Amino acid sequence: MTTARYIVFEGGEGSGKSTQAARLAARIDAHLTFEPGATALGSELRAMLLDIGRATVGARAETLLMAADRAQHVVDVVEPVLGAGRHVVSDRCLYSSMAYQGGGRQLGLDVVRSINEWAVSGRLPDLVVFLDLAPEQARTRLGRSLDRLELEGQEFHERVRTAYRSMAAADPERWITIDGSPEPDVVAAAVWTEVTQRLDLS
Amino acid sequence: MTTARYIVFEGGEGSGKSTQAARLAARIDAHLTFEPGATALGSELRAMLLDIGRATVGARAETLLMAADRAQHVVDVVEPVLGAGRHVVSDRCLYSSMAYQGGGRQLGLDVVRSINEWAVSGRLPDLVVFLDLAPEQARTRLGRSLDRLELEGQEFHERVRTAYRSMAAADPERWITIDGSPEPDVVAAAVWTEVTQRLDLS
Repeated sequence: MTTARYIVFEGGEGSGKSTQAARLAARIDAHLTFEPGATALGSELRAMLLDIGRATVGARAETLLMAADRAQHVVDVVEPVLGAGRHVVSDRCLYSSMAYQGGGRQLGLDVVRSINEWAVSGRLPDLVVFLDLAPEQARTRLGRSLDRLELEGQEFHERVRTAYRSMAAADPERWITIDGSPEPDVVAAAVWTEVTQRLDLS
Repeated sequence: MTTARYIVFEGGEGSGKSTQAARLAARIDAHLTFEPGATALGSELRAMLLDIGRATVGARAETLLMAADRAQHVVDVVEPVLGAGRHVVSDRCLYSSMAYQGGGRQLGLDVVRSINEWAVSGRLPDLVVFLDLAPEQARTRLGRSLDRLELEGQEFHERVRTAYRSMAAADPERWITIDGSPEPDVVAAAVWTEVTQRLDLS
């Protein structure tokens, strides 16, 4: 019997995370989940955080709401599924907050990391697949109407990307960086090769 | 012209905080506010946090939601009012989280303090009026239907009180402890005497 693994996809808007997370989850029969919003609490928070025209949310409140969603997600979803011996594949985890609030909103990676590591009771993913894509290229993929974070400007999204790259560089045991620009089939093949080199998922 | 002051009332359920905060605010023409729930964001969070039967909220998520409410409260209410030169009197502030989540939920005062000091960008009250009352005596005052936190058991409320007492003992410059058991008029007189000994509010 193989060890249940916690694999997370990270990246900017339009990087193909959701597509690739779903493909990998299907291929290894993992439980597919996401942040923010996968729990009952989280779905209320997600609406609060992403809807345009809802209550004003400052940068620190936003960070704390994201961390609250995450805390509940780990308790309600990640731990029980891993505990039952099944792999978990998540579309985003705490590194999203470090990139978006720490980097994008310029609150600093260290403080956002420490709040979030506490939020998840130290449960970090076994593997992070970072789909790297230039924001200007990602923008052309987002055809639908944009949410509050997607609507942030070019510089915000550049800071998000810089934060992701620095985290990937600092923790190469946990992070895999994949070029997000090719067609989904090409990206999926690259993800599969890299993931199976790192983890025994058979 | 006097300096605008930030004065906070703290204490357990039924300690008379809300009544005394309102009385002091009226007497010094302060802006009266409260946590959680005084902002647009906060009123959504308050419902989430206190309603029985809403989504499950774990101890860490609860802590982070309270901190998010507080962050927005400082940005939207406390800072603008103080900036305009008016006193602020608040029914609860970050010390409530240290007492309830740090003490009551046993998450530890230090981590809850560090998250919350970050949430409020270091804006601490000038004076904390702690209305001390034994939980069993407070219980008899709560005639109405109780919310999620009020419904916690006797040991929880004892831990909350212990946390308040230790904070008051550790920071006597900032904290005043007033016996919450007498009639409201008697408590109000004691509050007035102590507050005006500490601060020039004329």
